[in-house]
Amino acid sequence: MENQKTSIIAEQGKQEIFIVREFNATPELVFRAHTQPELLVQWMGVENHSMKIPIFENKSLGAWRFIHSDENGNSFGFCGVIHELEFAKRIIRTFEFEGLPEKGHVSLEFLDFEALPDDRTQLTTQIIFKSIEDRNGMVASGMEHGVVDSYNKLDTLLSKTNSL
Amino acid sequence: MENQKTSIIAEQGKQEIFIVREFNATPELVFRAHTQPELLVQWMGVENHSMKIPIFENKSLGAWRFIHSDENGNSFGFCGVIHELEFAKRIIRTFEFEGLPEKGHVSLEFLDFEALPDDRTQLTTQIIFKSIEDRNGMVASGMEHGVVDSYNKLDTLLSKTNSL
Repeated sequence: MENQKTSIIAEQGKQEIFIVREFNATPELVFRAHTQPELLVQWMGVENHSMKIPIFENKSLGAWRFIHSDENGNSFGFCGVIHELEFAKRIIRTFEFEGLPEKGHVSLEFLDFEALPDDRTQLTTQIIFKSIEDRNGMVASGMEHGVVDSYNKLDTLLSKTNSL
Repeated sequence: MENQKTSIIAEQGKQEIFIVREFNATPELVFRAHTQPELLVQWMGVENHSMKIPIFENKSLGAWRFIHSDENGNSFGFCGVIHELEFAKRIIRTFEFEGLPEKGHVSLEFLDFEALPDDRTQLTTQIIFKSIEDRNGMVASGMEHGVVDSYNKLDTLLSKTNSL
């Protein structure tokens, strides 16, 4: 199976990123892969890390927290609150990496699930940051590799779960 | 009593606003005026409007909703989720005006309460928007008048409640 291309757009001088990716599955299924914990842990995150989901309130005004751990027990936590969650359409949520030296570097994510012909989906993620520096720090952290890798794993999961 | 100056900085080409204001009261008191509903309704909002607070979970990972109503029964609702709330230090929360023609134009607010000498406080509010257009729309909506007016009312409240 050939993976789709992931476009990551970080325009100079802006405090935002756009990530655009198509999937060979319906918006309903791509959305469920983003919100059902037992599906999410199968594709999100870094290679050779396990993922735990201590909090995941899948609703508007809910909270979430993900923890990724490597084989040596090192853990990386992420957390936020969900402003809006509309099934198969949209997620708007805050995001903070708990491992930063200073708290408060929070970003806001807009995930839009758009139906394409032939039961396909375009997922557009816009992330707005507290500063250009925060945005650039995220890019420099190897985000692109992580996103591309995760979405490729998501392709595999979607191809197996089209019957869900 | 002379009101302090409110600085509103909206740099061209950016999707953010900074609002900087000093208050003649401690960070603890200014913070409480922002988080205790019975204090908040005394200063926030538009002239000749009453304010109701149907939801106000004053904690990290909480939700909030404010409704401002005029004498004719017209109501304006605002809502969001609280990513972080640290007493007398910081509030990070999402913000959405429910009266827009389209949902999803959410912004992220960072309120920093900084102690100044002589029991005074500098409150810095940074708001980051989904787009420059959303930012400019907020400025054009008369936000400046509303903010300056509210903060002047807050001055009055703080001068009365310094003994709280």
